Amino acid sequence: MDDMLSSHSPPDEPPNQYSRFNLPKLGFRNYWYPVLPAWRLLRKPKAVTVLGEDIVLFRDGGRVFALADRCPHRGAKFSIGKCQFAGSGTISCPYHGWTFKGDTGECVAAIMEGPESTIPGSVRVKPYPVEVRNNLIWLYVGDGPAPAFADDVPNTIADRDNFFTITSVVDYACNWRVLTDNWTNEHHGPYIHGNSPELIFQPLPPFNQTISVMDHGNDRSIGFPGKGGINHADFPGLGSYPRSTWHRFMKPTGRGVRANWETTEAAQKYGVLTPTSTRIPGLVTVARPSGLYFLVQFAMPIDEHRTRLFNINCFRRRGRKRELYDRLHYAVFRGWAHDWLFSGQDKKVVESVSYGPERLSRTDVGLVGWRKFAGTKGHKVPAQTR
Amino acid sequence: MDDMLSSHSPPDEPPNQYSRFNLPKLGFRNYWYPVLPAWRLLRKPKAVTVLGEDIVLFRDGGRVFALADRCPHRGAKFSIGKCQFAGSGTISCPYHGWTFKGDTGECVAAIMEGPESTIPGSVRVKPYPVEVRNNLIWLYVGDGPAPAFADDVPNTIADRDNFFTITSVVDYACNWRVLTDNWTNEHHGPYIHGNSPELIFQPLPPFNQTISVMDHGNDRSIGFPGKGGINHADFPGLGSYPRSTWHRFMKPTGRGVRANWETTEAAQKYGVLTPTSTRIPGLVTVARPSGLYFLVQFAMPIDEHRTRLFNINCFRRRGRKRELYDRLHYAVFRGWAHDWLFSGQDKKVVESVSYGPERLSRTDVGLVGWRKFAGTKGHKVPAQTR
Amino acid sequence: MDDMLSSHSPPDEPPNQYSRFNLPKLGFRNYWYPVLPAWRLLRKPKAVTVLGEDIVLFRDGGRVFALADRCPHRGAKFSIGKCQFAGSGTISCPYHGWTFKGDTGECVAAIMEGPESTIPGSVRVKPYPVEVRNNLIWLYVGDGPAPAFADDVPNTIADRDNFFTITSVVDYACNWRVLTDNWTNEHHGPYIHGNSPELIFQPLPPFNQTISVMDHGNDRSIGFPGKGGINHADFPGLGSYPRSTWHRFMKPTGRGVRANWETTEAAQKYGVLTPTSTRIPGLVTVARPSGLYFLVQFAMPIDEHRTRLFNINCFRRRGRKRELYDRLHYAVFRGWAHDWLFSGQDKKVVESVSYGPERLSRTDVGLVGWRKFAGTKGHKVPAQTR
Repeated sequence: MDDMLSSHSPPDEPPNQYSRFNLPKLGFRNYWYPVLPAWRLLRKPKAVTVLGEDIVLFRDGGRVFALADRCPHRGAKFSIGKCQFAGSGTISCPYHGWTFKGDTGECVAAIMEGPESTIPGSVRVKPYPVEVRNNLIWLYVGDGPAPAFADDVPNTIADRDNFFTITSVVDYACNWRVLTDNWTNEHHGPYIHGNSPELIFQPLPPFNQTISVMDHGNDRSIGFPGKGGINHADFPGLGSYPRSTWHRFMKPTGRGVRANWETTEAAQKYGVLTPTSTRIPGLVTVARPSGLYFLVQFAMPIDEHRTRLFNINCFRRRGRKRELYDRLHYAVFRGWAHDWLFSGQDKKVVESVSYGPERLSRTDVGLVGWRKFAGTKGHKVPAQTR
Repeated sequence: MDDMLSSHSPPDEPPNQYSRFNLPKLGFRNYWYPVLPAWRLLRKPKAVTVLGEDIVLFRDGGRVFALADRCPHRGAKFSIGKCQFAGSGTISCPYHGWTFKGDTGECVAAIMEGPESTIPGSVRVKPYPVEVRNNLIWLYVGDGPAPAFADDVPNTIADRDNFFTITSVVDYACNWRVLTDNWTNEHHGPYIHGNSPELIFQPLPPFNQTISVMDHGNDRSIGFPGKGGINHADFPGLGSYPRSTWHRFMKPTGRGVRANWETTEAAQKYGVLTPTSTRIPGLVTVARPSGLYFLVQFAMPIDEHRTRLFNINCFRRRGRKRELYDRLHYAVFRGWAHDWLFSGQDKKVVESVSYGPERLSRTDVGLVGWRKFAGTKGHKVPAQTR
Repeated sequence: MDDMLSSHSPPDEPPNQYSRFNLPKLGFRNYWYPVLPAWRLLRKPKAVTVLGEDIVLFRDGGRVFALADRCPHRGAKFSIGKCQFAGSGTISCPYHGWTFKGDTGECVAAIMEGPESTIPGSVRVKPYPVEVRNNLIWLYVGDGPAPAFADDVPNTIADRDNFFTITSVVDYACNWRVLTDNWTNEHHGPYIHGNSPELIFQPLPPFNQTISVMDHGNDRSIGFPGKGGINHADFPGLGSYPRSTWHRFMKPTGRGVRANWETTEAAQKYGVLTPTSTRIPGLVTVARPSGLYFLVQFAMPIDEHRTRLFNINCFRRRGRKRELYDRLHYAVFRGWAHDWLFSGQDKKVVESVSYGPERLSRTDVGLVGWRKFAGTKGHKVPAQTR
């Protein structure tokens, strides 16, 4: 696969800390990406931008379709048009009614030329494979046939028999690569989130750990186990960190203990290799040791300067009563504490990052590992050309 | 004239569907253009941008003047200055009071240097010929002496004895060439405007016509007569268009019949060659068969990305009572139904058009005809250099 | 000094009326500049842009510090971080807690790596010398050690024993060079400010003077004495200027008389060479003949398109009672009449100036003198490299 790299990553930006690892500014093609909560696509077609490509989403006849959002006739946007022939799975250009099949992208009518027109059959637009899963609309942005959805996404998302999900979405004003850097155990957590309400009743994650890179052996994900580490330190002449610890009475138990991950239920029963698994094309799965809850954070590159983050909370199904509790708990606490406040702390900081020289250190081992791994393995060759 | 083309159309943009026809992105120079409703220019000078040129308009001594909006002294804008010597037909720069004649552009005083200054007479700015007609301010944006206004604009605008006009203005967020494409009988009408209130009591214009290009033989305008066509069609496997026709009970009579245009009063009595006449530098005249009403739509290029559309409704004078009726009818119905709703349908679509590959078809014969005609005939050589 | 010019002024913009005089678009480096009223920097660090450089200001332990606003670790902005170790004169990056000394820019801790980290001592950011004077925060933006503050700024600002100051600040949407042109006795004053309330009870400054350039012999400032001039003129065929003079009954006495500047107290007692002294890097001192009041206008280049103007009103200390009167007078009249209205008249005009050809005249002698003087003398070589 590696020998195909050059043809897939044109040098389309000035050299920076990402381009030299061959990480494309618009994201990796040939993967499934979540693009929109399903409830946001109603009867009107909707324009989305995914990996820099303008795409129209529309619903018709109970299905969702996605096509390149530019009519090949005169260049108008389908997304301000409508489904002229309801139920046929087609969308018509707002300008002259050229009509395209949502699944194949083929032109099936040029309304203003009548039924005898020779245009249908001779014109098509790029179709995007679509899945509606977990109340999200997913697109395959790629150049060949899409892999099976369940083979491409984390198991906790694909396995709907055993998991249900609740998702929140927030757009970041930064490149996707800056956001995914955040998921490599590079120790921003104990610093940025030290005062987060989500962690207030838990021990702080330790810092100053020795990070290693654990390749999961699946060409898709890696983890960054940390060893050792401290929860408190004195800096001579400066003071101690964290400063105020009155609410930090909890010992490092429960979620905070990561040294013996192999003994957790998550590892033993569910085969989760590392507490966090960072995965191509740009997502992370954070596992609870119990294996009963996983948070998948998925970075969807909108364009060069914007990224849509999906916080997909995956709860193991444990009966109707427990599901009710989980949903309630999310609604009143976790959705606010994590997906809003906790992520908001990251958002402010990562949006302030600018390209330029970096001075990486030993706690950035995971960061470098991720960049190398993703830059090498992320450029999938489309199925049909292999 | 054609052999002068190269010197008038520098290749100032990347190749696209317009540049290859030699259609300039900022519009054709050396024509009269409407730029502002007259009532919008009050006592304060006003800045306008016309064909990408910054121009100050001002009123003084009962006349309207137009000059390049940059003082040659230090580069300040006249449009934030004032007429320091009221009644003299001059405007003074707000910075040091350099004063220029509105009609010739000559400097006649450099106030801060006193009456003995040698600046006056040695400095000038570009003046633009101005006409105030039909309650509009018109400018000649060109390089030589202006042709007579009446010789340059459609007769229904110039002939104030027989016509009165009512005008509405709307700015489009698109290049002028995208808007004028709209006026070539390329069949957007029956599709975009199918549900327009303006057409609700009339038969729909037919679609799937055979379009021809009729050169009017005047080097200025062409028309696009359509033959045949249908008002309804079934598309196998998709459905019929138009779908709901409960309000379409009218037979194709009146305005809808275009096949026998030569027999209309408009053609016989007033010599109108085609129902719509598209004209250089970028306007269209839509004629009522009766010849009693004409709509002139004039596209004034503001800059590369914006166009000001003037809907100039021309009513034949038929007595005071009839004029009152026409004005009232415009105020309560037509101004709303056409200039607002009907044009609003176009606006949304043409603003969505992006440059790029096109796949033209047989109903685009008029479109191609217009592009060729305008690209060839539109580059007038200024009078003095001929 | 001149032979060093080439290395200090790269041709970083297309040729224009400033670049050809070697006036840098982002301002002269190696000078002290006011950047912010001190009261606007509270407990939270604050981002400012000075001469195009992003800088974080912060207060800690009773001092104010300034550092380049980009952490060398991963590129986050210090300005959204905080002083993690209060009282130590350091600021910590919001991302991973890398901590830098405000005075030297040295890294003294990488919090997330614990006290044993090898990062401290091996990393630093650019520190900017800071002074808090006259209720303003001043920065030295340069490449070597800063000169003493008092040696670099006008005496009326440095001499706090004899002067107190009141400052207002306004941001201009123009390059600093356009604003400083305004301070060369180029005669905009009598024209722009003719109707200013500040001048309503005073004679108008004369226009049509003969301007000369007086080098103050200190390599920093020059003046532009005017001789002769008129207060009123008739322009044949146009009218007279100023038009209405009903409120202009005052004879040219007091502030208006500038011919015999050498005899004023300002000149004799305080050694002020010209009524206005324009000074590198971009400020002007306007002296009252009595020597009891000076207005310093200081242009701080924010970036290429924005300039922050500090109106620093300097009042000679004449006892508590008089100071109370001066402050009151400023609050109810002068702050409104000059710093708001009078300067507002300039602002509107200079913001309208665009680069391009100029047609300078004999009243622009001072303007050209300033551009030449500043372009030659303004490029200070940093102290350590001389």
